[in-house]
Amino acid sequence: MSAVLLLSCPDQRGVVAATAEFIAARNGNIIHAEQHVDGGPSEGAVFFQRVEFEVDGFAVPRESIAAEFAPLAKQFGMTADVSFTDVPVPTAILASKQPHCLYDLLTRWRSGEMPMDLRVIVSNHPDHAEIAGHMGVPYLHLPVTSESKPQQEQQVLEALSAHGIELVVMARYMQVLSNDFIDCYPNQIINIHHSFLPAFIGANPYRQAHDRGVKLIGATAHYATSDLDEGPIIGQDTAHVSHRDNVQRLTALGRDLETVVLARAVRAHLEHRVLVYGHKTVVFS
Amino acid sequence: MSAVLLLSCPDQRGVVAATAEFIAARNGNIIHAEQHVDGGPSEGAVFFQRVEFEVDGFAVPRESIAAEFAPLAKQFGMTADVSFTDVPVPTAILASKQPHCLYDLLTRWRSGEMPMDLRVIVSNHPDHAEIAGHMGVPYLHLPVTSESKPQQEQQVLEALSAHGIELVVMARYMQVLSNDFIDCYPNQIINIHHSFLPAFIGANPYRQAHDRGVKLIGATAHYATSDLDEGPIIGQDTAHVSHRDNVQRLTALGRDLETVVLARAVRAHLEHRVLVYGHKTVVFS
Amino acid sequence: MSAVLLLSCPDQRGVVAATAEFIAARNGNIIHAEQHVDGGPSEGAVFFQRVEFEVDGFAVPRESIAAEFAPLAKQFGMTADVSFTDVPVPTAILASKQPHCLYDLLTRWRSGEMPMDLRVIVSNHPDHAEIAGHMGVPYLHLPVTSESKPQQEQQVLEALSAHGIELVVMARYMQVLSNDFIDCYPNQIINIHHSFLPAFIGANPYRQAHDRGVKLIGATAHYATSDLDEGPIIGQDTAHVSHRDNVQRLTALGRDLETVVLARAVRAHLEHRVLVYGHKTVVFS
Amino acid sequence: MSAVLLLSCPDQRGVVAATAEFIAARNGNIIHAEQHVDGGPSEGAVFFQRVEFEVDGFAVPRESIAAEFAPLAKQFGMTADVSFTDVPVPTAILASKQPHCLYDLLTRWRSGEMPMDLRVIVSNHPDHAEIAGHMGVPYLHLPVTSESKPQQEQQVLEALSAHGIELVVMARYMQVLSNDFIDCYPNQIINIHHSFLPAFIGANPYRQAHDRGVKLIGATAHYATSDLDEGPIIGQDTAHVSHRDNVQRLTALGRDLETVVLARAVRAHLEHRVLVYGHKTVVFS
Repeated sequence: MSAVLLLSCPDQRGVVAATAEFIAARNGNIIHAEQHVDGGPSEGAVFFQRVEFEVDGFAVPRESIAAEFAPLAKQFGMTADVSFTDVPVPTAILASKQPHCLYDLLTRWRSGEMPMDLRVIVSNHPDHAEIAGHMGVPYLHLPVTSESKPQQEQQVLEALSAHGIELVVMARYMQVLSNDFIDCYPNQIINIHHSFLPAFIGANPYRQAHDRGVKLIGATAHYATSDLDEGPIIGQDTAHVSHRDNVQRLTALGRDLETVVLARAVRAHLEHRVLVYGHKTVVFS
Repeated sequence: MSAVLLLSCPDQRGVVAATAEFIAARNGNIIHAEQHVDGGPSEGAVFFQRVEFEVDGFAVPRESIAAEFAPLAKQFGMTADVSFTDVPVPTAILASKQPHCLYDLLTRWRSGEMPMDLRVIVSNHPDHAEIAGHMGVPYLHLPVTSESKPQQEQQVLEALSAHGIELVVMARYMQVLSNDFIDCYPNQIINIHHSFLPAFIGANPYRQAHDRGVKLIGATAHYATSDLDEGPIIGQDTAHVSHRDNVQRLTALGRDLETVVLARAVRAHLEHRVLVYGHKTVVFS
Repeated sequence: MSAVLLLSCPDQRGVVAATAEFIAARNGNIIHAEQHVDGGPSEGAVFFQRVEFEVDGFAVPRESIAAEFAPLAKQFGMTADVSFTDVPVPTAILASKQPHCLYDLLTRWRSGEMPMDLRVIVSNHPDHAEIAGHMGVPYLHLPVTSESKPQQEQQVLEALSAHGIELVVMARYMQVLSNDFIDCYPNQIINIHHSFLPAFIGANPYRQAHDRGVKLIGATAHYATSDLDEGPIIGQDTAHVSHRDNVQRLTALGRDLETVVLARAVRAHLEHRVLVYGHKTVVFS
Repeated sequence: MSAVLLLSCPDQRGVVAATAEFIAARNGNIIHAEQHVDGGPSEGAVFFQRVEFEVDGFAVPRESIAAEFAPLAKQFGMTADVSFTDVPVPTAILASKQPHCLYDLLTRWRSGEMPMDLRVIVSNHPDHAEIAGHMGVPYLHLPVTSESKPQQEQQVLEALSAHGIELVVMARYMQVLSNDFIDCYPNQIINIHHSFLPAFIGANPYRQAHDRGVKLIGATAHYATSDLDEGPIIGQDTAHVSHRDNVQRLTALGRDLETVVLARAVRAHLEHRVLVYGHKTVVFS
């Protein structure tokens, strides 16, 4: 069991030493540490760090670590998050009719390979209620029309709030979220787009890809922002295709990409390895 | 040693049998054959085929095969090209200052892995004259300015014509070719673009990729057309990158992609495996 | 809807023409055709072909095509199989406790992306009975011990026979099948091995991979033969790993590879694109 | 310009803080730091770290940094190497007849993308003398027979010593080095093996791969050790192949893999990102 510090601040001398010293002085043992400096000195470089250390034997009880670290964070102008690897992140999945991303996440959740505390599945369709019941996950069916959209979003938000959700995964949820919704969960909503962004923004990317005659298709996992398809990219991948692959085949091949790219991005977030700055991300390994 | 028929025509019953029968009746042995039908019956499907057969023992002398096949081609409305695997394609390389694609093609040419008859290197810079001389390839240094561009293009065209060139490879040649130039070599000029087209069209794609924070970079080999960066795509590939990779590093990583993607596309063309239709390609395996 | 001819015979002149002529003379339209010749003329080359043609309008009723083709097959010494794309292959899945390959195949089966007629799941554990029930697939729980193994295999064989099974998929079924069992389904049992064969043959390949310090892990789908881990390979893939990945992490990463490599191999078989010769395969695209 | 500390020692509390404090106390600014702990606490975990910090403004002159760090290294039982990013590593390339890896490294060296101080090319064949001369690199032609091998190795060693070589790259050098030779350059000789080790150890791996019918070929860069093909692996990659690819084609495709896998491994070494422990490596990103 370990604690994870996720830090960012203006780059400055001594910041690595200060954090390491903070931990060592309290009898902590650092298991992993990774850092990144973005930008050169002239342009105001930004420092990012992920430090993971053992909680056993640490001189400060876990519930007090954040408070104990606060003065140091203030001194360096840090944004600092403290998490614990034995506390899985309260998560909701939004889904529509397509099952591939949803079923994959359910399988991974059940296998325990991800620190995900899956609390609810919300869908505008009833299709997955039975499997959710079988898996023991509450399933909230909230249909939506263009008229009922504001009310439906409100219902979704209330459900997320009631479940104490900290991560929302859009597993091919075919609704555009309003800015008001997104503002409630900044950098906490992960979406999967079925193209190699920024290529083929918008609707029907596999149709667009086929029309252009590309030799690769892609998928992109990103945080949802008010600029549709412009949010910070967490991960991407591509697969080779050929003239033999029609739109239906591209779509089927694409599902495999979407599934694995979304799963990797969700895992990175759940393991507290992602930091957002501007419209970009640092994803520690 | 074998002959290659590269065919396209409106899809129709009996076309495969007719070509196979043509070869079998003349004692030919088919080594490879691959075909593709694009589009459904309703939309006027197009038939594409590549047939490779042994020339040894074939009842028609090689210089007469095209004429012998012509009536059948006419009957089915075929566009038909006849090539021979022991006749490498007369090729010119256009290069500027960057060496990576040029040197790679030179190495492959010398190793004999490609059926390329490299007859001339044309460059707007003198940098590679010495290695060309060492390799025994004529090197034509034709500097260009915005004023001299029409004249320089004319000189390039004359050189290509004098050398009987049938394939022009733009190995990171940093000049935009005029439409008049391109019209002289339809689907015979291969360019390498340093992005996963259609993402990051235009200048400085690695800078664009860095600014967008993508997690993959790409390269695209395509035939040059009057619509810049819109020509039929022959091949593409991508490589994973991370927040650690600045523009300089993306550029260096991208060079490896450009090199291999261009080489694969050139090889496919030289092996008579590429057919163009509209702004797309069929690339047989 | 189309028919698929899967052919192999000693390479000889006229074989392509004869088959194409057979189809054309009966008013058939060839949609796809791919062929391969293995080995040079001296060593007795073998010819392989997959021909797909439209059944609509074909002069011979589908139930008579095989018989109609038999004389031509005999003339050329062909092994010939006739299948129809609208007749999914009767399939059984064998599974143990691990869910990833099983759930993935179930999801693909339900989405209709594969021509699979899934008739039964057989397992030596009860774990997946509920999801099978939810999905509407019969689930046969047949526990096995070293003593009961022969009897259990007999029960499995009876179930496969009762369901008219033509393809058996070992979705991480953790039992070694006896030669007698395998002989009942030659080239009809697909297994997934969790390494890049022939590296790390045998037990605990991820442990072996970690001990050796490799930078890639792999998975291999192959037909089961009496030589364990030596059967004809249908497909393989690899993924990059690093010093950071311990055995548990390698195992989790490997599950993703196993899942997708098995699914691709099963799809290739179901689409009648695989031909076995000796201990190798031809997998048409 | 920056300094790189490459450290390993038994894992212990405070080691990260001590090094960071050492740098901060001397007004250093850490640009990159990455660390890894191998093995659990019970088995005697080992700590590895790469720390890169700016030399400008550092309170200790560069030539004294190693001595200044020595007491701290001793206190923690560290193996510590100090390097500077503006001091390229003195390198020799060993080559035989095949040009692909050699020419690729020459191109990269000339483009300045690697911190390599290429001082000499040694070959048992004269083939590359002219291009070496053109590139301005001394070329030592030392033919070898089974009888003259000990003497030839002695001559090679003398040349390496005379040039102050610290890294030896075997760019498809087709001679097995003796243990005596290897002992002179522990973890300083990089070899490229043309298979995905540990599959296809020994001679003719592409022939072995073809005979086995694999669907992927690979290449492995590793440090040379007395156990042939068993040295610590630095990097590996694979490429998809099919039944269409005969041994000649596998060999040609393999050359591309060998080239890029060797180049990546050499770059990692030159950038001081590789640490060896036992027969495994840590390769920092």
